[in-house]
Amino acid sequence: MRKVAVVGVGMTKFGPSEKTQVEMFAEAALEAIDGSNIETRDIQALFVGNALGGFVEGQFNIAPLLASELGLSADTPSNRFEGACASGSVAIRDAFMLVAAGYHDLVLVGGTERCTVMGTPMATRTFAMASDSRYEEFNGITFPGVFAMVAHLYSQKYGIPLKKLKERMAMVAVKNHKNGTMNPLAHFQKEITVETVLKGFMVADPLQLLDCCPFSDGAAAIVLASEEVAKKLTDKPVYIRGVGQGSAGPLYRQKDLTVPAARVAAAKQAYGMAGVKPSDIDVVELHDCFTIAEIVASEALGLFEYGTGSEAVERGESQIGGRVAINPSGGLKAKGHPIGATGVAQAYEIVKQLRGECGARQVKGAKLGLTDTLGGDLATMVNIIYGI
Amino acid sequence: MRKVAVVGVGMTKFGPSEKTQVEMFAEAALEAIDGSNIETRDIQALFVGNALGGFVEGQFNIAPLLASELGLSADTPSNRFEGACASGSVAIRDAFMLVAAGYHDLVLVGGTERCTVMGTPMATRTFAMASDSRYEEFNGITFPGVFAMVAHLYSQKYGIPLKKLKERMAMVAVKNHKNGTMNPLAHFQKEITVETVLKGFMVADPLQLLDCCPFSDGAAAIVLASEEVAKKLTDKPVYIRGVGQGSAGPLYRQKDLTVPAARVAAAKQAYGMAGVKPSDIDVVELHDCFTIAEIVASEALGLFEYGTGSEAVERGESQIGGRVAINPSGGLKAKGHPIGATGVAQAYEIVKQLRGECGARQVKGAKLGLTDTLGGDLATMVNIIYGI
Repeated sequence: MRKVAVVGVGMTKFGPSEKTQVEMFAEAALEAIDGSNIETRDIQALFVGNALGGFVEGQFNIAPLLASELGLSADTPSNRFEGACASGSVAIRDAFMLVAAGYHDLVLVGGTERCTVMGTPMATRTFAMASDSRYEEFNGITFPGVFAMVAHLYSQKYGIPLKKLKERMAMVAVKNHKNGTMNPLAHFQKEITVETVLKGFMVADPLQLLDCCPFSDGAAAIVLASEEVAKKLTDKPVYIRGVGQGSAGPLYRQKDLTVPAARVAAAKQAYGMAGVKPSDIDVVELHDCFTIAEIVASEALGLFEYGTGSEAVERGESQIGGRVAINPSGGLKAKGHPIGATGVAQAYEIVKQLRGECGARQVKGAKLGLTDTLGGDLATMVNIIYGI
Repeated sequence: MRKVAVVGVGMTKFGPSEKTQVEMFAEAALEAIDGSNIETRDIQALFVGNALGGFVEGQFNIAPLLASELGLSADTPSNRFEGACASGSVAIRDAFMLVAAGYHDLVLVGGTERCTVMGTPMATRTFAMASDSRYEEFNGITFPGVFAMVAHLYSQKYGIPLKKLKERMAMVAVKNHKNGTMNPLAHFQKEITVETVLKGFMVADPLQLLDCCPFSDGAAAIVLASEEVAKKLTDKPVYIRGVGQGSAGPLYRQKDLTVPAARVAAAKQAYGMAGVKPSDIDVVELHDCFTIAEIVASEALGLFEYGTGSEAVERGESQIGGRVAINPSGGLKAKGHPIGATGVAQAYEIVKQLRGECGARQVKGAKLGLTDTLGGDLATMVNIIYGI
């Protein structure tokens, strides 16, 4: 297999937008294409993550419409991937594998999503469709409920009193909001305090409002190239060193919601392909859809020992400048979460970090980065390792 | 790249079903796995086409749920592809490319869809979301309207009076319904006459009821293996010889709806990869969502000269036993059209034909087969060539 590099990235501001999914995608894609020193016509295939387009815009089969919007030729294959919140990362992994295998030399991968037009309550109910419709959604559970259960289980499993765990969860929100203030594309760019989090209204006990990421609108895009082509286009190629993807679910078939089997499997694949250890990773963008989600993800990814993820937050180990910077972009929590775009936005941040282009939120000397994206009821997990 | 073979196929009866998408998929998948002489645990990755699951069952992110239903392990990647009616063929092409490249030796590809529970009027409106939401769907067009325009354009372009064209379109329906009587899995298994078609109620002038395929429920699945593995599992491997995929749309950006640019591009790719000509093909399953769709597809695929596709039907050239058998399964028209399953069901029929297992509808001596699947507003086109 050939080495594959990211040669350009683009991203819209995340947050409420009046633009359509196609318009947002085009904005991000053209930035990525311009930054890659190529013309749109050089793109050989298009891979896109999108989850809710049918419900929000009445738009299925968005991939060829995006290809057309960019003026790509009729012989350009274009695929939409839907893996709930992991849709964008699923698209990146597939694109990477096809470029590595030699099918294409230059491809565009992106994600686009509109959520805010639905309003949060309707978006929450609609998005619950990413859980099992027969036995979970049917009983009324939504994702805040799923992760509330994860928090209770975590508290019990490791004997961490819920009050203490909630304070540490709040510290995740504080950290990610602080990081968001340094990201001009973030949905939220305002610092918060532990007290603010603990005073927020209850969404699903023990998760309060600021334990939850927002639904956002936005798009992100990256251009992937074979090593040979990448070297001609940029002197700052960022290579994809390893990928992994696992599957599990529904919840009632999973043994331990605090250690999702699909994530353990995906991470093992990615580390194995890259030939690196968790302790080699400098910067991580992981799936903090809820504050507890960041804690359990940091453990299953091997960044902290099981049961120590919340202490690590309290000790500042996951801050920028800490042992391993987690979500320097602000994460889903502050940067925002436009479902299908999220995985690609994680790639955007890691590439910018490894290129040293992140200004105030730059993780100094970052050479190896990891993304972690979760879809559905802990069902789809994708990990990708990037290196310079 | 390695050669890739289909080693097993499975399919449910098409038509109204009380089963869920997951249950139907499992039925088809287990038949394909049993027929491949493997165990479920041998499957290394899952690729699935599904279009309407969010609307019909409130089910996003169905791929890992299907993997779980089959008992696949957590390190099995599973992807849902949505390319409207072409979803299943998009999944096959992607799976083929990854096996050919050496990532996997044995994978499962399937499609599953429930439509009938919505009823035809609601399904038609819902499915219109596969056209451009900004400028087409917004104006009220549905797919019968799109193909009605194609019929009028075709009549004008080639100077074939609409009355004559309608008779020939009816002959497509008569042929495919006759083929359906020989397919025990077909949605419709009853012969019809030209008169019946022409007496049907008007759906979108000039398309009458029997010019239109039904919405169906159903699932289909195939197992793909690398050549080396395939030879150990079966003495009847059917190889994928070429694949192609094109993108276009929306309609207002397309030059000639009777010759979709994406189909011309996809067919060229597939014939080129296989190193064969249209005249080499013995049996074809193509996208006859409407009778006129079969006629224009047969031309863009190079099976008949442009403007002669309707005459060819009248002369019986596309019957079983004719110059090239088109839709011996009954096609979408009579076998039925469970959206995401359709491309995989086309593969099922071609594999059965090339193995000589089709009984009364067997195309004698068939050695080379072609599938053609269309998604959206002539936007996604996939062609796959199978050979023994």
